[in-house]
Formats: sequence, C-alpha cells, structure tokens
Amino acid sequence: MCAIVGVINSKNASTYAYYALFAMQHRGQEASGISASDGKGIKTIKAKGEVNQIFNPLNLKSLNGEIAIGHNRYSTAGNSSIDDAQPIYANCSFGDISLVHNGNLVNKNEVREFLMQCGAIFQTNLDTENLIHLIARSKEQDLKDRLIEGLKKCIGAYCFMLASKDKLYVIRDAYGVRPLSLGRLKDGGYIIASETCAFDLIEAEFIRDVKAGEMLIFTQGNDNFESIQLFNEKPRICAFEYIYFARPDSIIEGKSVYEVRKKLGETLAKKFDQKIDFVVPVPDSGVSAAIGFSQYLKIPLEMAIVRNHYVGRTFIEPTEELRNFKVKLKLNPMSKVLKDKEIVVIDDSLVRGTTSKKIISLLRAAGASKIHLAIACPEIKFPDIYGIDTPTFEELISANKNIKQVKEFIDADSLTFLSIDELVSSIGNERSYSLVSFDGDYFIK
Amino acid sequence: MCAIVGVINSKNASTYAYYALFAMQHRGQEASGISASDGKGIKTIKAKGEVNQIFNPLNLKSLNGEIAIGHNRYSTAGNSSIDDAQPIYANCSFGDISLVHNGNLVNKNEVREFLMQCGAIFQTNLDTENLIHLIARSKEQDLKDRLIEGLKKCIGAYCFMLASKDKLYVIRDAYGVRPLSLGRLKDGGYIIASETCAFDLIEAEFIRDVKAGEMLIFTQGNDNFESIQLFNEKPRICAFEYIYFARPDSIIEGKSVYEVRKKLGETLAKKFDQKIDFVVPVPDSGVSAAIGFSQYLKIPLEMAIVRNHYVGRTFIEPTEELRNFKVKLKLNPMSKVLKDKEIVVIDDSLVRGTTSKKIISLLRAAGASKIHLAIACPEIKFPDIYGIDTPTFEELISANKNIKQVKEFIDADSLTFLSIDELVSSIGNERSYSLVSFDGDYFIK
Amino acid sequence: MCAIVGVINSKNASTYAYYALFAMQHRGQEASGISASDGKGIKTIKAKGEVNQIFNPLNLKSLNGEIAIGHNRYSTAGNSSIDDAQPIYANCSFGDISLVHNGNLVNKNEVREFLMQCGAIFQTNLDTENLIHLIARSKEQDLKDRLIEGLKKCIGAYCFMLASKDKLYVIRDAYGVRPLSLGRLKDGGYIIASETCAFDLIEAEFIRDVKAGEMLIFTQGNDNFESIQLFNEKPRICAFEYIYFARPDSIIEGKSVYEVRKKLGETLAKKFDQKIDFVVPVPDSGVSAAIGFSQYLKIPLEMAIVRNHYVGRTFIEPTEELRNFKVKLKLNPMSKVLKDKEIVVIDDSLVRGTTSKKIISLLRAAGASKIHLAIACPEIKFPDIYGIDTPTFEELISANKNIKQVKEFIDADSLTFLSIDELVSSIGNERSYSLVSFDGDYFIK
Amino acid sequence: MCAIVGVINSKNASTYAYYALFAMQHRGQEASGISASDGKGIKTIKAKGEVNQIFNPLNLKSLNGEIAIGHNRYSTAGNSSIDDAQPIYANCSFGDISLVHNGNLVNKNEVREFLMQCGAIFQTNLDTENLIHLIARSKEQDLKDRLIEGLKKCIGAYCFMLASKDKLYVIRDAYGVRPLSLGRLKDGGYIIASETCAFDLIEAEFIRDVKAGEMLIFTQGNDNFESIQLFNEKPRICAFEYIYFARPDSIIEGKSVYEVRKKLGETLAKKFDQKIDFVVPVPDSGVSAAIGFSQYLKIPLEMAIVRNHYVGRTFIEPTEELRNFKVKLKLNPMSKVLKDKEIVVIDDSLVRGTTSKKIISLLRAAGASKIHLAIACPEIKFPDIYGIDTPTFEELISANKNIKQVKEFIDADSLTFLSIDELVSSIGNERSYSLVSFDGDYFIK
Repeated sequence: MCAIVGVINSKNASTYAYYALFAMQHRGQEASGISASDGKGIKTIKAKGEVNQIFNPLNLKSLNGEIAIGHNRYSTAGNSSIDDAQPIYANCSFGDISLVHNGNLVNKNEVREFLMQCGAIFQTNLDTENLIHLIARSKEQDLKDRLIEGLKKCIGAYCFMLASKDKLYVIRDAYGVRPLSLGRLKDGGYIIASETCAFDLIEAEFIRDVKAGEMLIFTQGNDNFESIQLFNEKPRICAFEYIYFARPDSIIEGKSVYEVRKKLGETLAKKFDQKIDFVVPVPDSGVSAAIGFSQYLKIPLEMAIVRNHYVGRTFIEPTEELRNFKVKLKLNPMSKVLKDKEIVVIDDSLVRGTTSKKIISLLRAAGASKIHLAIACPEIKFPDIYGIDTPTFEELISANKNIKQVKEFIDADSLTFLSIDELVSSIGNERSYSLVSFDGDYFIK
Repeated sequence: MCAIVGVINSKNASTYAYYALFAMQHRGQEASGISASDGKGIKTIKAKGEVNQIFNPLNLKSLNGEIAIGHNRYSTAGNSSIDDAQPIYANCSFGDISLVHNGNLVNKNEVREFLMQCGAIFQTNLDTENLIHLIARSKEQDLKDRLIEGLKKCIGAYCFMLASKDKLYVIRDAYGVRPLSLGRLKDGGYIIASETCAFDLIEAEFIRDVKAGEMLIFTQGNDNFESIQLFNEKPRICAFEYIYFARPDSIIEGKSVYEVRKKLGETLAKKFDQKIDFVVPVPDSGVSAAIGFSQYLKIPLEMAIVRNHYVGRTFIEPTEELRNFKVKLKLNPMSKVLKDKEIVVIDDSLVRGTTSKKIISLLRAAGASKIHLAIACPEIKFPDIYGIDTPTFEELISANKNIKQVKEFIDADSLTFLSIDELVSSIGNERSYSLVSFDGDYFIK
Repeated sequence: MCAIVGVINSKNASTYAYYALFAMQHRGQEASGISASDGKGIKTIKAKGEVNQIFNPLNLKSLNGEIAIGHNRYSTAGNSSIDDAQPIYANCSFGDISLVHNGNLVNKNEVREFLMQCGAIFQTNLDTENLIHLIARSKEQDLKDRLIEGLKKCIGAYCFMLASKDKLYVIRDAYGVRPLSLGRLKDGGYIIASETCAFDLIEAEFIRDVKAGEMLIFTQGNDNFESIQLFNEKPRICAFEYIYFARPDSIIEGKSVYEVRKKLGETLAKKFDQKIDFVVPVPDSGVSAAIGFSQYLKIPLEMAIVRNHYVGRTFIEPTEELRNFKVKLKLNPMSKVLKDKEIVVIDDSLVRGTTSKKIISLLRAAGASKIHLAIACPEIKFPDIYGIDTPTFEELISANKNIKQVKEFIDADSLTFLSIDELVSSIGNERSYSLVSFDGDYFIK
Repeated sequence: MCAIVGVINSKNASTYAYYALFAMQHRGQEASGISASDGKGIKTIKAKGEVNQIFNPLNLKSLNGEIAIGHNRYSTAGNSSIDDAQPIYANCSFGDISLVHNGNLVNKNEVREFLMQCGAIFQTNLDTENLIHLIARSKEQDLKDRLIEGLKKCIGAYCFMLASKDKLYVIRDAYGVRPLSLGRLKDGGYIIASETCAFDLIEAEFIRDVKAGEMLIFTQGNDNFESIQLFNEKPRICAFEYIYFARPDSIIEGKSVYEVRKKLGETLAKKFDQKIDFVVPVPDSGVSAAIGFSQYLKIPLEMAIVRNHYVGRTFIEPTEELRNFKVKLKLNPMSKVLKDKEIVVIDDSLVRGTTSKKIISLLRAAGASKIHLAIACPEIKFPDIYGIDTPTFEELISANKNIKQVKEFIDADSLTFLSIDELVSSIGNERSYSLVSFDGDYFIK
C-alpha cells in the first residue's frame, strides 16, 4: 500500500502533488518524493520521512513545470534505503522519464531475473524498476507503445504513472485491484490520485475512477486526453481498501469507505450474540465499524480507549520492563469507564494477534469484567501478495490457528469474525473483489 | 495551560519525567524541558519543539540523579524565545534550584516591577521568574520558609514544583484552580503530574490529588513526605480542565474527564429542540460530548468530519487562495454522508468563532441541508487570566455578540450553548469551580 | 579569550556584527550570539556552534535595529550549557539591556557570593552576570552611573559592551589587558571589536584603540560619542594576544601581530645554537615565528608538517589504537622531506607538553634524525587568570619541570624558550605587558 | 578530480575507508559515500556534504564486512543531485556490485548513447554508470572478463574500484593519468587510495603505485592478489596532480608533491627579473612554490595574505556592495606589512583570472606599490577533459588573451608563467606527463 498522484496542465503542478500526498499520508510515512517535468527535463526530490518534513517552499519551487508525479512509500519492516524511495527517474534513449507505482508485481522476480540476464542493472529493490527496463528495451518507437509492451509483461496489481517531457501516462491494472481516481483542478488541470480524499483539500472535482485495465494519456497543454482499454478483465477491487487502507472520507468505486465500514460493523453486530454493556472501538482503526455495530444493536458506543497521536517514529525504551509499553504509548484504556463492565472491542482486522492480545491485557488490567472481540473482516489466512510486504503464513495467526485457538491466544471472552460472504454482501454484491487474504484465490497469473 | 511533572526517589527520574511529559504533550507543544538533580548539582535540557524531538537516550542519560522536574510549554501566539522554556534554573546563595510552573500569576507585573525596583534582573518573560527572586530575597534561612514567603506574595492560579539538591517541593494554589495529582512509581519513587494520564503509561499508582493550598515536601531517600496546608480557601478547580484542556482519560478530583464531557453533551441534548438526522462531532475536541448527546437523544452519531493527524507546525501556503485551507488541512467533511442531511455539530467550546464559521462553510459545501451547532459549554465572555495567553475581550466573539448574532456570524441554522448552571450541575454540584471565562468572577485577588 | 563586537548607527548593525564575528571566529568556536536593539526592545539569538551555522539571512533579518552587539565564545574543556552563551539579556527597572564580555573577573566569586547573599539569582555560570546584577542594584538613576558603579566593583581583565534602548556602552579594563579597537563603517556607523581584522572584511576604517580604563558612550543617531576615563593605571596589554590569541593580520596597540611574531622568532633564532638543515613550523600556530627565525639565520623554512583544515568537532574514534591519532588528524609530517634531516620545530607556546611530545614522536617516525624544539615565548609557569579557563598549575608542564626535564618528557634533542626579557624586548620595550603566565605577577587586585 | 579508496581483508574496512576519505577531503567536498561488502550483500551510505558530516559511529558500524570502497565527490558548478554521489550500487545477473570512479571518460556520451539504444536506462548523470552497464551486458561468464571487456570500451583517464561479494577490483587507466597507490594496513589488509596522504593517518605502509593500465584483483581472505596488465601505453600522469590537485604531503610516482611544487617555484624564480622586497604566497595554494621561489632568490617570504579557514559553503550576502567580498571572506592582505612594498605574489595556477584580479586589487588597497604575479605553471589554454568539470574555452583567460592582455586584465605590474618545458623539467624529464590544459594534446582517443 502506497499513495501516488499525478498532475498535469497546472502551473502549480508540484504544489498540488504535495497537497495530495499530504492528504494521503496515511498510505505511507516512510518516504516521499515528487518529480516535475518542465518540458525540458525532469527534476526529482525524494527522501525518507513524511511529506511535511521533506518539502518546503524553496525546494518545491525548484520543482517547476506543469507536470508532476508523487509518491508516499509505506513503512516496511526491513531496513529500507533511500534508493527505494520513488519516483524513479531514468534517462533513456527516448528521453527522460519518471515513474511512480502503487501495488505489487507478482512476476517481479522472474522479470527481474530475465532482465538481468539481458544485461539490465538494478539500482533499487523496487519492482517499479522492472517496468522502466521493459520500456527501455522495447523495440517500439513510440513511448506509448513501449509502455504498453512493458505493461503486458508485468503481472500484478498496480497503478503506474509515468511522466515524460510533455506527457503523463496513467495506468490501472487489468483487475483494478488498487484504486485510482481522476479529478479536475480549479485551474483547469487534471489530477489523478490513489484516493479521492486528496481532491477535497485542493477543491478538485471528482470526474470518475480510472477503469480497470485502462490507460489514460494526457498531453501538456491539451485539455483532451486519450483513453485506451489495455485489458478487459472483470474488475476486482481489493477488499482491504474498504476494510483498512483507505481514509474513511474517500470514495472508492462509488462507495463511501466510511459507510462500507459502518456496514461491516452492522453485519458483525447481526451475528454477535453476547450480552454487553457497551461497544469500544480500537481507535482510530475500529471507529467506523464500531459506530455501525453500536447503531444496529442500539447499544452505546464508548471511546473507552484513548489514543495519543503524538507518537513518533523513535522512542526511548523503558529502563525497566513496563508491560505492553509500545501499545500503551498509543492506546490508554480508561479504567473509570471500564471497571466491571462487559464490553465488545471492535477492530478492523486481526493479523498477527499480538497487538490485540496486548490491548485485551490492558483492558483486563483496567477492570473490564468480560472482553469480547469482534473483527470487521474475515480471518486473514493468506499473505496478500497484491499489496505490499504483508506478513508470511507463519506470522498470520489465522493461517495457523482456528478461531477458538486465536480466542485463547489473545485471551478474549469471545471472538467474532465476518465470513467472506458477509464481507462481500456488506460491501455490495453487485461486483467482485480481490479477497486473496481471506480465500487464497491468487487470481492474477 | 502547560504540563508539569516531578519525580523523586527513582533511579530513572528523568526518564519517568520524559514519559510523563510525552503523555501530557496535548497540554503544550511549543517547548519542553527537564531538570535533574543528582545531589550535587542540577542539569537542565530544554528546547523548542515536542518531547520526542528534544530528548534522546543520550541526553536523557546525562540527566542523572533521583530527582527530576519537567515542563511542556503551551503554544502561544506571539514570537516566543528559547529563554521562555522551562524549567528555570538558578544558582542562589542557598544552592541550586530549578523551577517549573503551570498557571498564571495575576499580580505578576506588580511583583516584577517591585523586584526590579529592588535590583532584580529578569532574563525571561515568565512570571515563574518572580517566585525565584522572591525566594532568593527572603530573609528566611530555610528554603522551605523562603518558598512559603515567596508563595504568599504570588497571587494567581498555579502549580509549582521546585527541585533543590535533595528535595522536591510541590505546591498547588490556594483554590486548586490547576490540577495536580500524586502517584507512586513501581520502583517505589513518587511522581506528581498535572494529569493522571501520565501515570497510566508508566504504571504509576494514583495516590491522591494534591489539595488546594497544599505544599508537599519530599526528601531524597526518604519515603515519607511532609504536607503543609498553606492556604485554606474553598477549592475551585478550573471548569475548562473538564471542558477542554485535559485528556479524556484523566481523572480530575475523582471525576473522569470523559464522563464529564459525555454529561455535558447529555445536558446539551436535553435542551436541544431541533429535528436532526444525526449528530456530528468536531474531531477530536467534540467527540466525548457528542457521544453523550447522541446517547441521550438516541439519535445516531456519525463521524462525518475526518481529521488528518499528520498536520505539523509549518505548512506550505496554497499558491492560489483555496477556501478555508488551514481548516481543511485538519478537517474534511464527507459529502457522501452529509448530502441533504440535517445535522447538529458538537464542539467543546466557541472562542473566536472563526474556525466554527469555516467548519460550517465546509459542511454546507459538502451538502448538509441544515447545520445546527451545539457547544458543550457556556458562552465565553471573559478572558481567562488564570490560564495562559487567552484571547482578549475584542477577540472573544461572545463578549461582543449575543447568541443570535453569533449564529448569524458563523452561519449556523441554530446555535445552542450550555448555561453556567447547566455546566456546573453537569460536572457536579457538590463543589465550586473556577468559571471566570463565563461569569467574569475574578475571585483570585 | 573570546571575541566581542558592537555596532551603532548602522541600518545593517546586526549584519556587520555577524561579519565581524565571522572574522574573529578564531577567538572562539563554541557558541555565538547577537543582540540587536531597535529603539523599543532588544532581541537576541544565540546558540552553540560557529557563526556560520547559527545565523542565516532570515534570523539575521529579525535582529533589526541600528544597535547590535555580538560574542564568540571560546571552546572550554568542561561541559558547557547554552545558558553560558552570550549576549546576556536582562529586563531591569530601567529597561532592557544586553551585555557581552571578553575577559575574566578575578573577584567574580566574591562578588557573586555577595550578590547572592543580597538575594540575586544567577541563571548562568558567567561572571558577566555579576555586572548586570551590580547595575540593577545600583542606587544611581542614570544607566551610565549605574554601570560605572558596577565596573568599580569588578576587578579583572575585561572588555564589556552594553546595549540599551538607544545607547551603546563600551568599556576596556583599567590596564587594557584585553584588546579593543574602534572603527567607522562605510555607512557612517561605528564599530568596536576585539581585533582589527574584523574591520578589514567590512571595509571599516580603524580610528583608534579604546584606551585602558576608558568608557565610550554612543547614542543612537548621534555621530558624537562621549569618552570617560574611568581608571588611570599604566596600560599592560596581555602579551599572549601577540603570542597566540590574535589573528596575524590584526594590529594591536599599533603593532602588527604578524611582525611581532616574526620578531619573536628572530629573537629565538639569535640564541639558538644547534646545527640544523632547515626550520619547520607547527602549522598554523608557529608559522609567523618560523619565518622570522628562518630569515634571521638564513636557514631555509620548510612546511614539512601539513595541516588538515577539515577537522571538525567530533570524530569517529579509531577501532584499534592508532598512535597519536588525534594529532595526526590535524598534522602530517612529510617523511620524504624529513628523512635523515636535522631540524628545528617552531611553535608559539608550550602548555601541557602533550601535543609537542606527539608531534616530535611523529617527526621521528617520519625519519628526522635530530629534532630541536624552539618555542617563541617563555616557559608558562602560572595559570592566566586574566584570560579564561587556562590550565591549572598541575597541568602546566613548565610549572612542574625545568627545561631539561621538559626536553626529556617531550623527547626533543634540544629545547629553547625565550626569556621574559627577550619576549618584552621583542614586542617593544616602550610599554608594559601583562605577563602573568610567565612571571606570576598577578597585578590586578 | 575526486578521491577514491578501497580496503580489503580488514575487519574495520569501512572505518579505514572513512579515515582515508577524511585525509583526502581536499579532493572533493560536495558528496561522499562508502559501500561495504560482507560476503552476502553490499550496503551503501552516501550523501551530500563532507565526510565528517555524513558518517557517525552508528552508521559506519552498519557498513560491516571486510571489503569497502569509498568516494569523495568534487564540488561542481551546476546543481548536482544526490543521485550523482558515489559509490554506485547495482544488482546484476551475477550478483551485487558497487563502483567508484575518479576521472573522466572522453567517449562517455557515445557509449551512453549506444547503451541507451540497446535499452539501458541511466539513473544518474555519471559516466561511471556506463561501465556498470557494459559489465552487465557482457557475454563473458566471469566478472573479471566482463570488467575487462567493459574497460576496453571506456576511453579516458580514470581509476575504478569495484567491490563484489568477495572481491575487490582496482583499475588504473592505460596512461595512468589519475594517481593510485597501494598500501598495507597494520592489520594485514590492503588499502588502495588516490593519494598516499591517506596512508599516513592510518599508519598504512606504502607498497607501490598501481601501474598505468594495470588491474589488481584482491580476493577476500586471500593475502595474494592478481595483477593483470590491461594496456601497455607509455605512462603520462596528469601534471595538475603535482601543480594543484594533490596534498603536498602525498607522494606521486615516487615524487614528493611538496618538493615538486618547490621546484616549480624555483624554476619560476630563475626567470623572474623584477626587483622585489619580498615574496607573498596566495595561501594555501601558492605556499609551496613560494618557498622554492624565495629560497632560490634568497628573498624573504612573507605570509602577507592571511587566510580564514572557517569559510563554509553558504554565507550571508553583504547588504550593500562591499568590494571583492567573497575573496575577502577567505583572504586578508596585511597593510602593515605591504605598505609601499614591491612584491611578487605566487599562486599555483591562473584559470579565469577573476580571483587573481581581486587579490591584486586587495593588495593595492593594502598599500603595495608594485605587485608582480608569478604563476607556478604554464598558461592554461585548453579545457582539461581528463579531469572533471573544467572551465570552457570561453572561461579560460589564457585561451583568449596573451600574457600582456592577461597582465592588464588583472592589473599586475608584471606576470610570469612557466613554459611547458620548464614545467616538465621541474617535475622531472625522465617521464611523460598529461599536459592537455597547456598544449591541447588530447592524446587519449
């Protein structure tokens, strides 16, 4: 999960890209970057850290030009390098290009291996670099044709944006697994972004979602744009965008993320059969579902866990072992509210189970007498190779334990998940979804 | 409003002070500092910025010793200097001392003037410096007597903590306007902090609140502490601590801040007579009251305004005038949810009216058909000189307009405040409160 | 040894102060600061580090006003605090003042003790703070009279500059131990600085040295200035200014520092009786004397030790013990030049002997067959309490060993010092000097 | 001109590389980087700035492994990007490699163009990237053979070092234009560096220079190394290494740089026929030659221009136009010494003439009555395309003006250059030199 943005035909292209990245900061805090094309060359600024730390009026001003693309990189577990920040710039036989990517290519290793055998060198660990090499090696004349040829060799869930001297190419994968929306700026320019929440801040007007398998080609100074349908698969947006990734105020494929989450909570409530005093969300991830849950059952919602938003990246470790310290840095249950109460805790997902176990431990210490846990999605039994850097089978608790065993591990009084069918019907039966984490159907081949 | 903390009899005194300041970061983000006393001298580290930015394992380690005091400074409008960060250290005839202060001395100018006439020099703009001079000039032998003499000349709402070579002095003002609580650390040391939320992170046990007019004297290595009742006024805790300042998970004078805020929302609901589809809190300030409001009326709560928590201190200004840009950086209303709805917006207070006006403007643009505003406190008609840096009469909208005029200014369909009586009865009739912002009763003279 | 500067009647007062501090950076790299007075108040910026790191166009612009004073703080061994940076600002009964100080008050502890007994508090470790307290406590009406009364109680070697709302007071101590010169800026303003090298960069015209015991009073907007002779002692400029402290291109009391150093080398050459192949200076401290030495004896000078000027403040320690590593970081002898040669090494002074010992060790390793050491000043036998932070008796090698013993300790083939008489006659017999480090005549009482 | 270093068979490989880069900081202050290979993978840290600013004990520790290569990048005029810092890392079909380069490839554009036509993408502006692509595209199996094939296609003056999983490849160009020396560390490892001054700090023993056209192959854990003579041209070391680039304490091809520079000064003195009072070097560039000049003529040397070594990268511009400000920031002539004197100023080279013009202007203002300029090298009439980023024909004053015209432009009373023959005979007639800047013989084709 990352965020990408592209802007064209705006004198403030890089500034709008910056605002959009700021609005989509939740999709990645590890690194950010923006490339701007001024018709002559492409300049790029990228670094580790949050958007607000990397950009300032001075360096943003140096990113002049009417085309800009930007990227927020998701925090990954391993040791990452500045070389893995995006956009990736390349000088090729046909000129300068810069590329951003949100998604994951499932055949990345095979393609990389093939390209390396052909003499390609890789300066990053990013699968994004594959596409640049494929474009560069294509025998086609036109950049568009090179790009199409390259894309046909990239299997996976992805959104790409490519800036050249005077064009912006926007591509969404065959199934439309990752979201991508098109909007129009107040100054007449176009903006394309991973989430519609990016449009609100800059008063861009939502036009439509980019279609699954569609490529859009914008030309500098030209208000018309070309649309090419590269693939014709049945769309399957990633269900996790609704469940967890997206900001609640974004609209994905016409559906409000907030309303979908409420519906997930409502569906969860329908099958929940424990007696409780009130509903407690894990802030902020479980709030929307908890509201739906609470409204359906007409049982009060209480913000009985308080979140500290000042938590930064590094923190001084406790000198003696304070229990559950890292969770407590963020979350504090209120014993005054919880004392001797029977509650249900709502969260959006349960991955490794370790954080849930700690939260339940904190709630017990705060005096709650019964703690039920209800998760607003199904059991996660398979790694999501269409997202990015998901846990392995070994780490996924539901891939290794049944519900009863998980309940015991996390020490909950009861544990409720949605079924896959309940998930799908809650989002809406009218279309298909990418559900790999739940059903292991790795449909992109 | 600032945060203060004191620790004694712990080998990790400065580390515990650091954690406590982190937990109380909401009370001030402009500057922070910690002094530690190791029985020989006092070392101080202070700087502008947040706790997490200022301290690191290395500099925290240099603050060794079993006594520590710390301070978070509230962000003020004017241009502040590093010299105005606390603690303030002084080398005096009776040794080194260091002082932190939360509150405001109403006679600060008179005392400062008097002290300067006597030859005192002031190196900061802080009223805190007054007390150090008074202590230094006292003819008493003992530091305790010097301190008491000095305090008797300081009129205002304050909590002070003073660290010396081997003692920690803790004082709460005559009326107990500012909160202060005493706890015990797991390693046997004592901790005193502005809010009890600081205790939770470090698993300190709450012992009791420091009493209005009480001075506590702790001696390094001694598990007993002395309590002296300096003043005997009827306690009047600042109502704003419940309304706005404190974290919802803190307990002030035995009352859960979260529960008081819910009660304020409930009281507001009782008098609210408009027809609405749902209740919308201004996040995060209005959430607790909105829950109480919603529960009482059995009208759904919707998180229809989403908050972006990544907003930092500096931000690149929009190149063209985007409407309500600064508010939108933090708050985004969801048009999908709000479209054609009649809503009530709940906030904790209404000061200048400018932010509320912008929020309502955003909500209208998002499609809400009727927007009622309900404020979970009375009209603020008087500057709170017992807090710090409050707006002037000219800036306080309710000091200059009646409710109808304010309603028109902010363009709400209706506007509801609590009365002072409703505020008091919601917190609890059993005791008195400092209500200066509402009734103008400047009782500390 | 520190650097101070004052500017008045210039629209660019703080910028000129900045340039002057930059030119005098050699007198102190630990901290710097500038105060500017704009007729209403005084603003101060100070921090640890070098001038170039602390100031930028933005913060310098905020130091507006036509009066500015500045300070470079000398690097001291112990752990210093930001609180010990200058200028020191104070708000007093008679208004804002800001003070800078170069020198040392020998009765600082007594005065501080006295002031503390009177109730003064000290927020720094600087003796500079004494004078502010004395001014503040004076019963005189006028700031000038307060200042004079305060100065009469300060015994020591000092230069002070004090900025008020509209005046700049400049004081040199009774004996003129520390240097101070007056110049005129191209825009008509005045500048007063520790060394004349500060004038060259900004094309200020040297007017004259401030006299020993003289106070100058400048008034904003007034081209005339008042001169008051506070003391009438026989002037005794510190000989170390010529030997070591000052930049060679400065003129002190009419004498070129470079030419004095050459003369010291020449006098040293006259008594030097060893056979040598060439003369090697320790760069950069011994270069001027080595030129004089070489010219007198007509023996070639060779820059056989190369200095690395990139050495910063912190450095990564060698993983295994490399011999004389810290000296080698700065100084590298050329074995190609030194192999089998008999040389004399010239340095400006010999304090602890440890560095000289290491340099000689490096020169031997580089192949020099005989290494004579000649020091262009007498043996340092007494701490210089009129400077700042000089080594103690225990640390001064010549206070504890005779020349033969020192020669053996540092492993030189011979060791030559100047006598005190030779030092004095080399600088010039026509006046007296402060020679405390050599003769222990602590004449300021 | 850059600096490179390679270390193998040392547990502290990256630390030694760091020290060596520090010692060679004069060859480039714009950016630095180190790659370390631990037998599994290669880690790289690189950034803009000086070595001391980029590396710290923590990040250096992360560069573990017994092979390390490092690079200092020379400050270039244009706006440079972090992407242009070295080493350049690449993941290829045959594993990870990392590469550093000092020099310039004259056919870089042709090779880059060819490679791009083959589908290669370039992520930097560095010609270094060419070699990586050539290696990657080679059909040879072995890395050594790939490297040799690539090198045969690179025409220019270069030193390369390539680190792989377990090998270090070191190559000096066919003519040996750029210097490169081999040494042995105290712990038994090998070190290869651009200059021998790097060996002195870490007590490495000089073994021999790498030969022109030689490739050395070191294998991790193996004390023997392989030497392959790739090319058999007559060596032509760059004369500018002696004249300007190298540190005076380095030994290049058996000759002391310091002694060569003295000899250049001596040769200059032989043809100098003006009457002068003394010799003045431009510090630090002209000092060595001035010593030789002075010794030959037995005319005194005076350090009459003082250099301020605190000059950093950025500086606050003067508010009004101070004449020759940027030169004065570094250099200050002493009027006390220069007044009414006839002098010769010695510098190592004269490129654009602008700085010399300003220095002469400053010396005249300081009172010198006659100012002769003597340059310790011939007229620079051709861009040095074997170095890096040299001025164009248009910028080189001697490419556009004869000596008389240059003398008039810089306003000197006389101007003396060495002839090319004098340059060559001063360094030593026994071998050939690269003299492109002087004779335009671009012999590498």
